Amino acid sequence: MSKREQSVRSSVNTVHVFPPISPTDPQVALAARAHIDRLTKPLGSLGRLEHLATHLCSIAGTVPAPIPDRAAVVIFAGDHGVTAEAVTPWPSEVTAQMIANFSSGGAAISVLTRRFNIKLVVVDVGVAGDISTMPGVVHRKVKAGTANLLHEPAMTLDEARAATQVGFDIATELVADGVQLLGTGEMGIGNTTASAAIIASLLGVPAARAVGRGTGITDEMYAHKVSVVGAAVAALGSQATDPWHVLSHVGGLEIAALVGFIIGGASCNVPVVIDGVITLSAALLADRMVENLRPYLIAGHRSTEPSATLALDDLDLDPVHELEMRLGEGSGAATAIPIIQAAAALMAEMATFDSAGVTDKTEI
Amino acid sequence: MSKREQSVRSSVNTVHVFPPISPTDPQVALAARAHIDRLTKPLGSLGRLEHLATHLCSIAGTVPAPIPDRAAVVIFAGDHGVTAEAVTPWPSEVTAQMIANFSSGGAAISVLTRRFNIKLVVVDVGVAGDISTMPGVVHRKVKAGTANLLHEPAMTLDEARAATQVGFDIATELVADGVQLLGTGEMGIGNTTASAAIIASLLGVPAARAVGRGTGITDEMYAHKVSVVGAAVAALGSQATDPWHVLSHVGGLEIAALVGFIIGGASCNVPVVIDGVITLSAALLADRMVENLRPYLIAGHRSTEPSATLALDDLDLDPVHELEMRLGEGSGAATAIPIIQAAAALMAEMATFDSAGVTDKTEI
Repeated sequence: MSKREQSVRSSVNTVHVFPPISPTDPQVALAARAHIDRLTKPLGSLGRLEHLATHLCSIAGTVPAPIPDRAAVVIFAGDHGVTAEAVTPWPSEVTAQMIANFSSGGAAISVLTRRFNIKLVVVDVGVAGDISTMPGVVHRKVKAGTANLLHEPAMTLDEARAATQVGFDIATELVADGVQLLGTGEMGIGNTTASAAIIASLLGVPAARAVGRGTGITDEMYAHKVSVVGAAVAALGSQATDPWHVLSHVGGLEIAALVGFIIGGASCNVPVVIDGVITLSAALLADRMVENLRPYLIAGHRSTEPSATLALDDLDLDPVHELEMRLGEGSGAATAIPIIQAAAALMAEMATFDSAGVTDKTEI
Repeated sequence: MSKREQSVRSSVNTVHVFPPISPTDPQVALAARAHIDRLTKPLGSLGRLEHLATHLCSIAGTVPAPIPDRAAVVIFAGDHGVTAEAVTPWPSEVTAQMIANFSSGGAAISVLTRRFNIKLVVVDVGVAGDISTMPGVVHRKVKAGTANLLHEPAMTLDEARAATQVGFDIATELVADGVQLLGTGEMGIGNTTASAAIIASLLGVPAARAVGRGTGITDEMYAHKVSVVGAAVAALGSQATDPWHVLSHVGGLEIAALVGFIIGGASCNVPVVIDGVITLSAALLADRMVENLRPYLIAGHRSTEPSATLALDDLDLDPVHELEMRLGEGSGAATAIPIIQAAAALMAEMATFDSAGVTDKTEI
């Protein structure tokens, strides 16, 4: 770690102290590989399913890893003051309307979690409207939407910390209830602007490389969104790589909660499936806040948003799917979960050459 | 269609006449797209899941398509005389041993089909050994393995035709039993040599481009395999693009059955999920034998075998997964099936903007 990174990390620890995350044991990965190579199939022929199975063993610390059939996707929802800048064609009310749609089962993530037997949890951590009577929602609102990040910090440091704690608590509560695999989701009109600002600052790339078309915008709106993100990142000045500063100034309440959720899952030794750009921006922030996080992350898919690939590369993640999705909600994480579970099942349930009485290939 | 293609197709029809395959109706695809664009998500944001859902509608002829929850993967098994040429480090006995492993539930395809609630059917159409008392196997052996394709035709035309009929019958029987989605699988030591010869002949590419490492071979064995495939293709002479000639001379009994199975599924208006190179070689042959086949094919994954990409490109198929698998058995098809079913479920079960009371984006 460079001195600069050390100094950022120590400033971080004065903001909020998370429980430590255990490093994974490289011996477990070696034992997992050795086990996979005795299964009745040519060496390496299950491709990335073998990597996933090994990865799950490293996290679980056992060979084979338990099949993580109890999975949950958590959607953290929050609104964004930056919608005042016309960075999206969707009005902020859609955040609350979509939460109702999640609960009533009509959203993409509702269909996917139902189909794949994944628990779906929707958390209001920062929705602008009052949805406190809406059923099927975990109510942990920290603030009714962020401030406009173009003109002022999106949140105070205290608000960011409180939202992070919400996410951390949700992760640890789910794990205490027996959940073995956590998926990340989000809903928040305007949050691709916040995540582009986070990714551009942390990775030091120009706004134009980090900003995508979001959920459907014109060329004019795109150019405007690039200038908003560029100005917000520029205003961070020398603190553009301090994760707490970035989170509070250009982040979102749901992004803060995701940061805590990801750290919470990892601190319980549970794999966390990352979705698209918003959850990737949270993973980047989390990675800058704590040690030993990366081995707990699994990328569900490669969103078509350009900053997704920037973040995946930085985190050294190879996504399960390349389905050209860009919906968010946790849809990419949910779609990957049955494949991740299948990888674990293959390792746990396949016969070995010896047990099945299959002749191994001739040594040549 | 060129005159040469017409002449090949008419010679084909004198060999074996299949029932016609209905063309799909482009109006259904348009109606499917229009329906998808009313669902509560930004336009196009489910990426290739939207293409899959549209594709299923085209095949079913209805919008939305029924969710094809009753799926089956069929493994056709056969042995190959060309194993005498030392093109693989695996002895032929492994074909029968692996069939026992499929039946007892220890193979990769056993684990995947169990997990994804897919019916697994194993058919002996050409295994060298006598496995007629093995339980859990459909016994329709046409011949106990092919002849050595390097020195003589692998099969007679009559044998090829009989094996094709086995596959066709299995497909139509499954559909009659209510199966809505068919997946292709195979087992046959030596069959990557046969499929490389088929792909090289039909696509007119050099053997070195079509031959892969199969299930794990040395450089020396690889060079030898290329020369065997090259010699077999050269011997086809001017008939290298006649599908029945190619099938009988350099194919396999399981490949012939797969040809019939694929055509059988399509003729029942059921989507057929293609697996790796062996099943792709069968799809290429089927495509040369009948009209209107392609719209019924879905590629499960992109095998790392080089000829897989050649065949996918020729058939204009965009695979669901890119998981670097190369196992066969139907493992790539089985892994894609839950994703294909989810695509149909999204279309059938998601709310529309109107039904969910979600504000659509501002027209801009």
